[in-house]
Order: sequence, then structure tokens, then C-alpha cells
Amino acid sequence: MSWEDNVRRMDPYIPGEQPCFDDMIKLNTNENPYPPAPGVQRLLNGLDADKLKLYPQPDARVLVEALAKEHKVSCENVFVGVGSDDVLGTAFLTFFTSDKPVLFADITYSFYPVWASLYRIPFETPALDKDFRLKKEDYYRPNGGIVIANPNAPTSIAEPASFIEDIVKHNPDSVVIVDEAYVDFGGETCIPLTEKYDNLLVVQTYSKSRSMAGMRIGYAIGNAKLISYMFDVRNSYNSYTMNYPSIVCGAEALKDRAYFESTRDRIVATREMLKEDLRALGFDVPDSSANFLFAEHERVPAKEIFTRLREKHIFVRYFNKPRIDNRLRITVGTDKEVERLVETLKEILR
Amino acid sequence: MSWEDNVRRMDPYIPGEQPCFDDMIKLNTNENPYPPAPGVQRLLNGLDADKLKLYPQPDARVLVEALAKEHKVSCENVFVGVGSDDVLGTAFLTFFTSDKPVLFADITYSFYPVWASLYRIPFETPALDKDFRLKKEDYYRPNGGIVIANPNAPTSIAEPASFIEDIVKHNPDSVVIVDEAYVDFGGETCIPLTEKYDNLLVVQTYSKSRSMAGMRIGYAIGNAKLISYMFDVRNSYNSYTMNYPSIVCGAEALKDRAYFESTRDRIVATREMLKEDLRALGFDVPDSSANFLFAEHERVPAKEIFTRLREKHIFVRYFNKPRIDNRLRITVGTDKEVERLVETLKEILR
Repeated sequence: MSWEDNVRRMDPYIPGEQPCFDDMIKLNTNENPYPPAPGVQRLLNGLDADKLKLYPQPDARVLVEALAKEHKVSCENVFVGVGSDDVLGTAFLTFFTSDKPVLFADITYSFYPVWASLYRIPFETPALDKDFRLKKEDYYRPNGGIVIANPNAPTSIAEPASFIEDIVKHNPDSVVIVDEAYVDFGGETCIPLTEKYDNLLVVQTYSKSRSMAGMRIGYAIGNAKLISYMFDVRNSYNSYTMNYPSIVCGAEALKDRAYFESTRDRIVATREMLKEDLRALGFDVPDSSANFLFAEHERVPAKEIFTRLREKHIFVRYFNKPRIDNRLRITVGTDKEVERLVETLKEILR
Repeated sequence: MSWEDNVRRMDPYIPGEQPCFDDMIKLNTNENPYPPAPGVQRLLNGLDADKLKLYPQPDARVLVEALAKEHKVSCENVFVGVGSDDVLGTAFLTFFTSDKPVLFADITYSFYPVWASLYRIPFETPALDKDFRLKKEDYYRPNGGIVIANPNAPTSIAEPASFIEDIVKHNPDSVVIVDEAYVDFGGETCIPLTEKYDNLLVVQTYSKSRSMAGMRIGYAIGNAKLISYMFDVRNSYNSYTMNYPSIVCGAEALKDRAYFESTRDRIVATREMLKEDLRALGFDVPDSSANFLFAEHERVPAKEIFTRLREKHIFVRYFNKPRIDNRLRITVGTDKEVERLVETLKEILR
């Protein structure tokens, strides 16, 4: 007998590496290549350190109000957390206590099975079809909850809101979580459906389209009852998860819609260009609704391309997993970054 | 059947209120009345928002290195989290999986039973003696873990490290967590004991002596095995919990030892003055090793004093709980704040 017998032993999620080279091109963790809205820089530089001596607002009110306004819902419909990982983890802990399995796709965000293991939640992973599309009938059976990334990662493929609605409608006794981390780049949000379905939770993040991965802000939108259950769990864990800078900078970022749209549009334009370039080089690339592409070369193994790019300090993401181990997930950077990527790929594939 | 049948329903911890009046004197949540070290203000004002587009260091390396240096341990001995609540919650989840009860005092930080409920951990609460002292023999029996706040809250009473060591020594098969949130104000830290006992975890925070409650930084120090189990659980929940500002400001704050000592010494001096003033007004006040006092008046009920102070915008903490429902927990503010408190108490008690 030892204290180690009572340890919850976990194989943690392994995030994409955060290398640190001056000349690197970092296209491996779906970050935004552009800085946050200029107002965030101004606000940061004017922050009064004296405010830090007090605890932050426990309800992160300033941020919640800004998000409610942005998404045309009430404050009671908004939950905030330390990145969408914190929000999703809290939702798993709050809603998934059934003995029946929680369902999510075999190819999707690989944190879902980790949260399920952490909280000892049974789960099953229905397979996407050969084109990486969800089959909604897979979700029409008894379950303890459903999680759908839409657009999905790492596939980049989105389904319309009506597709998700069918699944939500078929599952009134389960909470359905729609993870919309990438929705701003081409997906259709399910937020309007949260008014109609009390079992639907939509999760979004500042880490992609808002260029604020370093500030760790995520949020969920759902009916007031869902949200209040999540806050009860959150407040049974940590009374103040959002620190003062994240509350005020998160609210500030939402004020500048023009900047948001212009950076998003640049990323979408670069993505479409990169997609054509990759196809011309012999890659199979599905149409993307996200800020990344999911590419398989007709001839050269993904792992080899990944390794050779890495030697040149170009970082993309490679998953050594069944069905997708010959694909690369490539984040859309600036035009200049993806041009260097394409030039380097030409050399590698020559 | 409804999705609500599978909700984890919680009665959350209720933190002290965060009122917002220009003229208020806030002595209810044990915050520091002085601003963080001046270097934190300078650093905040020079922060480059462009850094926020990338994810922060997943291992918060800059902060971990600074804490390791501060406490003369290795990086592998340091765990960091979003306030000590996050650190303690992670420790409960990681180490307390036994069927035997976790033990903590009946009068102590009231978040402990909430974490236990959240994770469905059985617990028992041995009673402090009539002078609010721990009885170490209470912890010499089979258990699934032990948690001790030292100095204890809301009592303000500390035990020497040798007292804690006895408990640790008697429990080699349990993880013993020592919550040292208030240690800098007069307690004796158990950090040196972590070299000797692999089952001892010491938790500290930036929210009190470092004046950074609003930044949400807590940490734990323990042997490398303990810490690595905690990181495995943490990284199974959220890959990046510490945001960029908290990592860099947390490291910066440690550089200015002179400022840290001078503000701490002012608080200790004010505390001793306030203690004498309160005793002169007819309060029973144990000697405090923390940045607060735990006072009971000989004649006027605590709840009445609490309410009347509140009317004057002076906020102290009142716990409506067995054994302590006639006491007030009063945070030590600036000299000016506690002078106004004492003047107001004189009026109320007249």
C-alpha cells in the first residue's frame, strides 16, 4: 500500500508543440497569424496593476455582458472559461454522468476521449464516412450525451446547422455539445438554435478568429438552465477562473467588428489560394470551413513531408492515428508564410 | 427521463462578495491593500498584444522557473494553476480516489468539502479544540488523504512545521496537502519538508502576500512524482491554463523581494495594532499568523456588527456556521482603513 495506489493516472492530451525559432513558420496549432484587435493593445498598456490586488469579478460580468451583446442573447445564456478546453471540460463534468456512452466521431478533436477518461465517462466513437462526413443516424440511439465539432477538426469539414438540428431534435434526453472553435471561418453557427432547444450547448473560443490564444478565453451559449448548472459546477471548483486581464481584454476585442472581419477575410482568402496550390502539387484537400487544411499527398507519405518541413522550421501537425496517418493538418498563416510553405513543399516533392 | 437527470448538481462555494462603492473599505476577502510590485505595472504597460495570438507556454515555464528559484527547488517540483483554488481542486482530483475518507478540520477553508462533493470523495471533519487548535491525533487513523490549512482560515491560527511533520510521518500512504495561502504573514512553511516526504504537497498563492488576487496564480511544491501526476491530470483537462499575462507578471513579481517584505511587514504591523484595538473594545481575538483577525465580541452578536458595518460600506466576513457564527473574519487593510473600522466599531458598540 502506498499513496500512489490512489492516484488518478492519466495519459494526458498532447498539444501541438510550441517551438521557438526566430525564423519559424508555425502552422501547427491553428493560431491566427494576425495580432488581436488594436484596442486590446491599447487596453493592455493602460492596465492599472493596482486593480490586481482585488479578486476579479467572480461572474466575469464585463466579459459575459459583451458576449451576450455580441451574440444577441442574455447574460444568463453565457458561460465563460479559460479557453474552450476549460468550457468543454466543465460541460463534460456537468452533463455526462449517465451510464450510457457519450458519442463523438472517431476522427475529431482528440481531447474528447481524454475528458471522458478523466471523469470516467463511458464513450463510443461512431466512424465518419470515407469522405470524413458525419452520419447523423449514428447519433439516433441511446446515449449519455453527444459532442460534435462543427466545423470538425482535423478534417476542416462543416455541416449545416439543419444537420445538427436533426441530431439535437432526436436526442431531447441528452445534452448535445457543438464545438464551434472554427465556425467564424466558414461554418454556420447553431447559436440561434439554443433558443429552441434546451439541451443544446454551443462552444466558441477567442483562440482562433479573435487572435487571442495566449489570453485563454472560451465560452458557451445555451439556455439559462444549462448555463446555470455549469456555473454551479465551476463555482464548486474555482470561484474566479477568469483573471482581470482576460475579462477586460476579452470584452474589448468584441468592439472592433471591422478588424475581426478583415483578418478573418484575409485568412479565408489565403486558405483558398493555399488549397489550390496544394491541389496543384498533388494533394487531396477537402474544401475547408476552418482556418486550416487537411491534406494527403498522392505519392509522398505525410510523415515524411512533416519531418522534412520541420527540418526547415516549418511546423505543421501530423497525427499518428488510424485513418488519418497519411494526412497533414496545415494552419492557414499569412500569404507570405504559406508562400514559403508552398515553395518548400515544391522542393520536398521534387 | 430528461437530460436534467444526468446533471451533476452542486451547491457551489460562495465567495465573499465583491462590492463596488467608491468609499468602501473592503476587509472581507483577505486581499492585500497594497498594489503588486512596481515591476508588474511596468511589465503590464509594455506587454506586446501580438504575443497573444499564440498559445502560451503549456508548461508555463517562465513562471515555474521563477518559482523554483524563489523556493530553492527544481522546476520538476513546481505545479502552477489559476489561483490556489485551481491547484487544490486539481490535487483533490488527482490524489483522492480512495474509498476511505479524506480528513480536514470542521473549521477550515470551506472549499474543501465542496471539492470533495464535486468529485464524490468521502470525507470526515475532525473538530478543532475549543481554542480552534488542531488535534494531531485526529489524523492518526485510516484515511484517503489529509488537508490542512496552515495558518488556518478563518481562525488565523498557525501550527509549527514540526506539528505538520508529525502528521505527514504518520500517514505515508496518504497524500497530505498543506494549504499555506497565508504563510507569509507569520506561519512556518513546510516547503523544506517536501524534500524528505514524498507524500507532502504544499500549496501557496499570489492572492494574498503578492497582491495579485486579480491575476489568479497559485502553485504547489512537492516531490517530482507528485507534481508530475498533477500535471498529467491538468493536461487531461486543459493544455494551457495559465495565460500569457499571468505567466510573465507572476515571474516578474518574484524579482522584488524588498517590496514584498515591506508590504508584508506593514500588514503585520497593522494587524498587531488592530488586534490590540479590538481587544480594548471587548473582542476576543486569537493571535493571528495571517492577514486577518478572527474576532468575537463579549456582548454584541457578530451578525449585528457585520450588518451595521455593511451599512457604512465597511465589508468584513461573517460565516453563518456552527461554532463560528458569533465571529467576524476581518482582513487587515491599510492603517487608514483599519482606523476607520475601529472608529466605526466604537460607534456601533457604544
